[in-house]
Amino acid sequence: MNRLSLNQWTTRRWTVAEAVAGCVRHGVGAIGLWRQDVAQQGLDETVKLVQNAGLRVSSLCRGGFLTGPDPLADNRRAIDEAAALQAACLVMVVGGLPGVIPGEPLGTFSRDLPAARARVADALATLAPYAADRGVRLALEPLHPMYCADRAVLSTLAQALDLAEPYPPEVVGVVVDTFHLWWDPDVLPQIARAGTRIASYQVCDFLVPLPADVLLGRGMMGDGVIDFTPLTRAVAETGYAGDIEVEIFNADLWAADPETVLTTTRDRYARLIAPDLGPA
Amino acid sequence: MNRLSLNQWTTRRWTVAEAVAGCVRHGVGAIGLWRQDVAQQGLDETVKLVQNAGLRVSSLCRGGFLTGPDPLADNRRAIDEAAALQAACLVMVVGGLPGVIPGEPLGTFSRDLPAARARVADALATLAPYAADRGVRLALEPLHPMYCADRAVLSTLAQALDLAEPYPPEVVGVVVDTFHLWWDPDVLPQIARAGTRIASYQVCDFLVPLPADVLLGRGMMGDGVIDFTPLTRAVAETGYAGDIEVEIFNADLWAADPETVLTTTRDRYARLIAPDLGPA
Repeated sequence: MNRLSLNQWTTRRWTVAEAVAGCVRHGVGAIGLWRQDVAQQGLDETVKLVQNAGLRVSSLCRGGFLTGPDPLADNRRAIDEAAALQAACLVMVVGGLPGVIPGEPLGTFSRDLPAARARVADALATLAPYAADRGVRLALEPLHPMYCADRAVLSTLAQALDLAEPYPPEVVGVVVDTFHLWWDPDVLPQIARAGTRIASYQVCDFLVPLPADVLLGRGMMGDGVIDFTPLTRAVAETGYAGDIEVEIFNADLWAADPETVLTTTRDRYARLIAPDLGPA
Repeated sequence: MNRLSLNQWTTRRWTVAEAVAGCVRHGVGAIGLWRQDVAQQGLDETVKLVQNAGLRVSSLCRGGFLTGPDPLADNRRAIDEAAALQAACLVMVVGGLPGVIPGEPLGTFSRDLPAARARVADALATLAPYAADRGVRLALEPLHPMYCADRAVLSTLAQALDLAEPYPPEVVGVVVDTFHLWWDPDVLPQIARAGTRIASYQVCDFLVPLPADVLLGRGMMGDGVIDFTPLTRAVAETGYAGDIEVEIFNADLWAADPETVLTTTRDRYARLIAPDLGPA
C-alpha cells in the first residue's frame, strides 16, 4: 500500500489536514495535492502536515493553462509551491484554445490549434529553467482529446514526449493517466518510449456512458471500461518506481463518505493495480 | 453547391423523399442516406427517387459494429443495399468493446481492446471481397476517442489507414470527419498519407461545452471550435474530387425547421468549406 497515493480530489470534501490524516490511517504512502486546497490550509502548515505524517507529495496539481494571457507569473508561483512541498512533480495541464473557458459558452476565442500548441512550447521554454533551478519537475499531462478545446491542446503521450524532448527527464517529465490514454492505439509503445520521463502514473477508470459533465467521467478502478493490466505492466517495465496516484472526479464519490471512498480506493488498488507493478 | 451532400440525419425529421426533394430545391448535388430511413421509404423506391432527382448517394450509413456477435450477415445486407443505391461508399462504424451497448449502463462486456481491434480486422477480411464483388467501397470511419468503448475502437486516421492497407483503395477507403479528427496532432500528415483512400469527407463542428449526450456534440460549421481551412485544404490536396457531406447530430437542429437547417447548411458550406476546396 506504500506506493499508493491519494489525490485529494478523490476525497474532495476532506481538507488537506483531513486527507493527510486519512492517508496515515490507511497506510497510504503519498498524497497528491491541489493548489487551492493547499492555499486554504496554508502552504507552511501543509508542509508541516505532510512532513510530520511522513507522507510523500506525489504531485501538486496544477500548473499550466499556458495558452492564455500572461501564464508565467502564476506558473512560477506554482513551481515555488511545488518546491516548498518537495512534490515529486508539478502537473501541467497545458490549456485549450486561447479564449475558450472550461464549462462556459464560446465567446471570443482562437481556432488556431497549431498556434496554441506553439504557445505551450514557448511557455515551457521559459518555465523549465525556472523549475530546474528550484529542483522542481514539470510533468506534462496529455488529456483525453475530448478536452482539447477547453483544457489541454496536448492530447497524446507521443505529443507530450515530443514537447519534453529538448529538456532533461528530471526537469520535464510526463503524466501517464489511464483515463486520458487508454484508447490510444499507440499508448504501449509510447509508455516504453517515455522511460525515465514518467513523472506520475495516475489511475482511474473511464465511465460509459459518460455523465452529463464529461469532466466527471472518471470512475473508481473497476467501475469502467479500462483494462489496467497492460498499462500498469508497461509503466512498471520502464523501471518507474514512483507513486501510483488515484485521482477521481466523480459526483457520486464526492457525495459519499470520504472514509468509505478511501477504503474502496485501497481495495481496488490492491486488486486491480498492485499485482501488475512487480517488485518495487 | 454541387459537391455539397446533405446527410439526411442533418434534417432528421425529413423522410428520404422529403430530403431528396430538399436537395433538389437547394441545388445540393448529393445525399447521404441511413439504412433505417431507406428501409422505411423502401429500397427500390429510394433508388428511383435519387435517380429521378439526379442525385449522387455520397454514402450509406452504416455498416460495422464488427466487434459484436455475428456481424457478417447484416453487413452483407448493408453492402447489397449500398450496391443497389450506387452509393459512393458504405460507412463502417466498427463497434466498441464487445458487450458495451451505446447509451446503456455497462453489463457483461470485454475490456480487451486489442482483441476487439483484431475482431474488426478479421471481419473486414471477410467482408472486403464480398464488397469488391459488388463494386461497393467500404469506408472505415475513425471516431473520436470518446466513443472508443461504445461505438468504435478505431480512433485515429492512422489506425484506419493501417487497417485499410492490405486492400485496394477502391475497396477499402476511409472517412475523414472533421468532428472526429480535428484534435489529432497527426491529422494533416495522415490525410496526405490517405491520398486516394479518402472515400468521404464529412464536415461538422465540435461543440464546446459538449451537451449532456456527447453523441449530439456535433454542430453546424462555425458554431464550434474547428478551423476547417487546414483540414479542407489537406483533403483537396490529395486530389479528392468526391462530395463533401454535412452530417450533424444535434438536438437543436433536429427540433428546427429542416428547410431552415438546409439553408444554413448551404450558407455555412459556401462560407467555411467551399473556398478551400480549390478547383473541383
